[in-house]
Amino acid sequence: MKIAVFGTGIVGQVISIRLAGLGHLVTIGTRDVAKTLARTGKDMYGNPPFGEWYERNKDSVKLFTYKEAAALSEIIFNCTMGQGSLDALKQADDNFDGKIIVDISNPLDFSKGAPPSLSPVNTDSLGELIQRTFPQAKVVKTLNTMNCFLMVNPAAIAEDHNVFVSGNDQGAKSKVKEILRSFGWKDGNVIDLGDITTARATEQLLPIWIRLYMALNNPMFNFKIVVGAAPKI
Amino acid sequence: MKIAVFGTGIVGQVISIRLAGLGHLVTIGTRDVAKTLARTGKDMYGNPPFGEWYERNKDSVKLFTYKEAAALSEIIFNCTMGQGSLDALKQADDNFDGKIIVDISNPLDFSKGAPPSLSPVNTDSLGELIQRTFPQAKVVKTLNTMNCFLMVNPAAIAEDHNVFVSGNDQGAKSKVKEILRSFGWKDGNVIDLGDITTARATEQLLPIWIRLYMALNNPMFNFKIVVGAAPKI
Repeated sequence: MKIAVFGTGIVGQVISIRLAGLGHLVTIGTRDVAKTLARTGKDMYGNPPFGEWYERNKDSVKLFTYKEAAALSEIIFNCTMGQGSLDALKQADDNFDGKIIVDISNPLDFSKGAPPSLSPVNTDSLGELIQRTFPQAKVVKTLNTMNCFLMVNPAAIAEDHNVFVSGNDQGAKSKVKEILRSFGWKDGNVIDLGDITTARATEQLLPIWIRLYMALNNPMFNFKIVVGAAPKI
Repeated sequence: MKIAVFGTGIVGQVISIRLAGLGHLVTIGTRDVAKTLARTGKDMYGNPPFGEWYERNKDSVKLFTYKEAAALSEIIFNCTMGQGSLDALKQADDNFDGKIIVDISNPLDFSKGAPPSLSPVNTDSLGELIQRTFPQAKVVKTLNTMNCFLMVNPAAIAEDHNVFVSGNDQGAKSKVKEILRSFGWKDGNVIDLGDITTARATEQLLPIWIRLYMALNNPMFNFKIVVGAAPKI
């Protein structure tokens, strides 16, 4: 498939190279191609600048503006930082008609210090905000509850663990589940929570994700839902 | 130990009878003893009125006012509904000096319909609010992320799964961990997230708990944190 990955950070890099490896035609979207390639500093997480990575991977993925990347694709992965997602997506919204936006970002708000809070939260979510803002697109929220290396390679943890899916369009969710399967996700580990309002629930996993990361000092962990017999009351 | 359980709902019932079975001297606290015993209707979850349960269990646990129950106890379990917790605890706050409040409730807000949202949330939590309001007490947030039958009997699910602990006082957390151990929690499954601000993270598990309950139609499930090897980047 033709897939645009919005966002040039570590998440966008890992997602795009994995999709390209699976045979998809992958474009990476950014605001300003020249500026993105000219950046030399490390990002806020200490990763090397995008240009270094792109130099090694430009045979597999091609960098375009958001608008161009969306025009060239059937599916858009939103891997931008949550606080900037809406603005990034608006650059390309004349190319969203009937397309799937796979929203894997989280609305982390660092304005009140670390650890970040969420905005929007509780009675709204970034997933819903994106769906409301771009009603012509089919938004599927998924993969936002784990480290990006685990998103594309769940077998990195030997034990079963779960990924959640939220979205209003069943057909779009089915296509996204196919992509999840191609990443290595077993069908039984994919939990469809329901419509896009359930994105509130998965985005609110971020606060404990961050606290667990601080406690474990290792980003390679995930949530597994374990189930027992229903109680006889 | 002498333990007060605040709240006469299903959670208070299950917690108090389990603590009594372990040999603790358990009092149940309520606002108005006569009114609580006079109630005849089912609660919002369809459970029978407290009086029926109390008639069967009054040899094991005794019903008092919040104030009396706190005065008689070293540890207070807050099992009231989250939106009423502060008000309930205020009835007894001249008896909190140096005592441990084990807060297992969640600030579920049904005012905007179902599923409930949380209030407070995000940059605050009920656990923190209780600690701020009663600085003379040592608040430990725990057990709030699962069904009450699982709280007191983790072995009801054969597989390992986790319980989280948040609180500012190490001594208080150690005592609460002892109680968790007596309920059947293995030390390795108890995750101490840090100070009471980490209660924000565990309370924000409720939205996905509720969505998973709706998807599974079974309250006997829990979160297990599965961990892989740290990535070599």
